[in-house]
Amino acid sequence: MASKLISTWIESVPALDEAAMEAARARQQTLTKPPGSLGDLEAISIRLAGIQARPVPAIGGKAVVVMAGDHGVVVEGVSAYPQDVTGQMLLNFLEGGAAINVLARAVGAQVAVVDMGVAAGLPQRNGFLRPHIGDGTANLARGPAMAREQAVRAVEAGGRVALDMIHGGVDLLACGDMGIGNTTSSAAIIAAMVGHSVEEVVGPGTGVSGEALRRKVAVVARALAHNLPDPRDALDVLAKVGGFEIGGIAGAMLAAATQRCAVVVDGVISAAGALIACGLQPRVRDYLFAGHLSVEPGHAVALGALELKPLLDLGLRLGEGTGAVLAMPLIEAAARVLAEMATFESAGVSGREGS
Amino acid sequence: MASKLISTWIESVPALDEAAMEAARARQQTLTKPPGSLGDLEAISIRLAGIQARPVPAIGGKAVVVMAGDHGVVVEGVSAYPQDVTGQMLLNFLEGGAAINVLARAVGAQVAVVDMGVAAGLPQRNGFLRPHIGDGTANLARGPAMAREQAVRAVEAGGRVALDMIHGGVDLLACGDMGIGNTTSSAAIIAAMVGHSVEEVVGPGTGVSGEALRRKVAVVARALAHNLPDPRDALDVLAKVGGFEIGGIAGAMLAAATQRCAVVVDGVISAAGALIACGLQPRVRDYLFAGHLSVEPGHAVALGALELKPLLDLGLRLGEGTGAVLAMPLIEAAARVLAEMATFESAGVSGREGS
Repeated sequence: MASKLISTWIESVPALDEAAMEAARARQQTLTKPPGSLGDLEAISIRLAGIQARPVPAIGGKAVVVMAGDHGVVVEGVSAYPQDVTGQMLLNFLEGGAAINVLARAVGAQVAVVDMGVAAGLPQRNGFLRPHIGDGTANLARGPAMAREQAVRAVEAGGRVALDMIHGGVDLLACGDMGIGNTTSSAAIIAAMVGHSVEEVVGPGTGVSGEALRRKVAVVARALAHNLPDPRDALDVLAKVGGFEIGGIAGAMLAAATQRCAVVVDGVISAAGALIACGLQPRVRDYLFAGHLSVEPGHAVALGALELKPLLDLGLRLGEGTGAVLAMPLIEAAARVLAEMATFESAGVSGREGS
Repeated sequence: MASKLISTWIESVPALDEAAMEAARARQQTLTKPPGSLGDLEAISIRLAGIQARPVPAIGGKAVVVMAGDHGVVVEGVSAYPQDVTGQMLLNFLEGGAAINVLARAVGAQVAVVDMGVAAGLPQRNGFLRPHIGDGTANLARGPAMAREQAVRAVEAGGRVALDMIHGGVDLLACGDMGIGNTTSSAAIIAAMVGHSVEEVVGPGTGVSGEALRRKVAVVARALAHNLPDPRDALDVLAKVGGFEIGGIAGAMLAAATQRCAVVVDGVISAAGALIACGLQPRVRDYLFAGHLSVEPGHAVALGALELKPLLDLGLRLGEGTGAVLAMPLIEAAARVLAEMATFESAGVSGREGS
C-alpha cells in the first residue's frame, strides 16, 4: 500500500485536456508554414496545451531538481568512482561548478539540490534540501535496498520538493540525479519494470568495462533473483532495488503531474524514476518529455516502455539533469511558435494552391 | 573562374587551429565529469576552439540570415504554393510573425532578411537588404537558372552580408532560406555535387506528393541532363541549376570561414549552399555545424557528403533557418561547459579509482 499522501497524488493526476489539444491542433494549421513542417515541435505544443489545459500554453519558470543519494551496492565494485564523489559533487553543485549548473544557467533554469540520502557526512550548509532518508541504501545484491517505509518517504519527499518549486512558479521541471552506483540500481529497476533481460539494460555507467562490467551484470541479476521485486507494485521495486534519489525523482514526477506541470526526463536514472512514477499512476506518462537518449542501454529500453521519443541524441551519459535541461529550449520554442507566429490571414500570405 | 573577391576569400580560409583544439581537448579531461560523458558537446567545444583559434571559445553575438529568392522552375508545377508566397513571407519576416522570427527571439539571435532575387515587386521598405540579383531565376528545366556572372554576384553579395554581420559582433551565424521552388533547385545541386541519383534527393518540399512529386523528379532529371553542370566547378553548378538565395548562402558561409566564424547549416537549401561553398573551398566544411536533419531526403545525402552529423532530428522541413537556430543553444552550451565548469582539482572531487 502507498501512504495516504501518495494515494492522494495518484488520484489527483488529471487526464490531458482534449479540448485544449484540439484547439492547439487547429491553430497550428493556421500558422504561416506548410502544415506539419515544424515536425515534433508541433506535437510538443499540442501536448503542452493538453498538459496545461489551455489552447496556447506558455513556459514561465524552468528548474532542474538534482536528487542525490548513495548506494550500498558500491561495495560490489560496480562503479569507476569512489562513493565520496556523491557528496563532493553535491558541494560542487552548490558552488555552481558542475555541468548541470553551467547548462541550467545557459537555458535560464534554476537548480535545486536535494540530499535524498547521501552517505558522506555532508557539512551543515545552506543551499540544498535535506530529506535525507538514510545514509545511503543497503547493498541490493544481498537484500532489499531500503525498507518499504523508506521508499514511501522518498517518494513523498521528492513530491514535496516539486510542489514547492511549482508553487514558486516553475512550469517546466527537469529531474536529474547524482549518486555513485545508481546506474546499477536503475538497470535493476528497468529490468524489473519492463521485463527485459539484465544484459540488455546494464551499461558502463561512469565508465566501467571488461571484468567490472561483467561483475555489474552479475550484481543486477543477483539483486533481482534475491529480492524478487514485484513489477505490479512500483513501491516494492523501488524498495528492493532502487535508491533514495530515484524515489525522489518518482515522487517529483507524480506530484508535478497533479499540478499539470510538464516534466523533462533526463538519462537512465531519471527514466527509472519515471517507470516507478508511471507504475504508481500510468497517466504521469502524459506529462513527461524525454530530453535525450543516453548511451546507457537501459535508457532506450525505459523510454521505449514509456513510449517517449527523445528530443536529443548527443551521446550524453552524465546525468545530473544535463540532457533534460539541454532540451528545455526546444520545449519552450514549441510553445512560443504556437503563441507567437502569424496566421496566413493576419500576415496576408497565400495558402496552398487549389486549397 | 571566380571573381577576384571570391578568389581572395577562397585563399583566406584558415585551417582549424590545432594547438587550440589540443588545449581544449586537454581541458575537457580535467572537468568534473567522467571523461567523454558530455558526448557531442565535448566534440563541439573542441572544434569551436579550432575555429576561433583559442583554447576556451565563446559565443557572443548570434544571428540568422534569411536569404530569399524566386525560381523560374515553379512554372513546371513543382511547388504546393504560388510564387507570390516568397515575397509575402519576406514581409512576414519583417513583421516578426514567421517561425524564424519566433525561434530567433527564443534563442536571442538577430534576424537579417535579404532579397537575393525575389520576383514579386516588393515595396520599398526598410528592414531588409537588397542585393536583388534578378527577378527570380530562369526555368532550370529549360536552360541555365542564371548567368555565371549572376552566380558570382550572388556569392559576393551573400559574403558581404555575412562580413557586415560578423564585423558587427556575430560569431555564430545560421544560414536560412526562403524561396518557393527552391527544394527543386537544391535537389539538382545535391545530385550534381554528390553524384547521387535524382530519385534519392528529391522530396516533397512544402508538400507535393503523387503525380506532382513524380513531375518534380522528372524536372530535376531534365535540368541535369539539359544543363550538364560540372561538379568540379561549383559556380557552374550554381549558375546552371541553383538559385540566387543559394548563392547568397554559399557566399555567407565562405566569407564567414575567412573570419573564423562558426556557421550553422539549416535544411536542404542551406546544405545545397554548403556544398557550393565547400566546392569553392573544402576547408569551409570545418566551420560548419549541421543544425538538424530535415525529412527532405536530399538533406541526409548532402550532410553525409559534408561529413556533418546533425545536432537535432525533429522532423522539420520548413527552412528559413529554423532548424539551425534551434541548434544554437546546444553550440553555446558546449562552449560554456568548457569555459565555466570546475575541474576535479578546483572542486576537490576525487577522480577515478586506481587512476
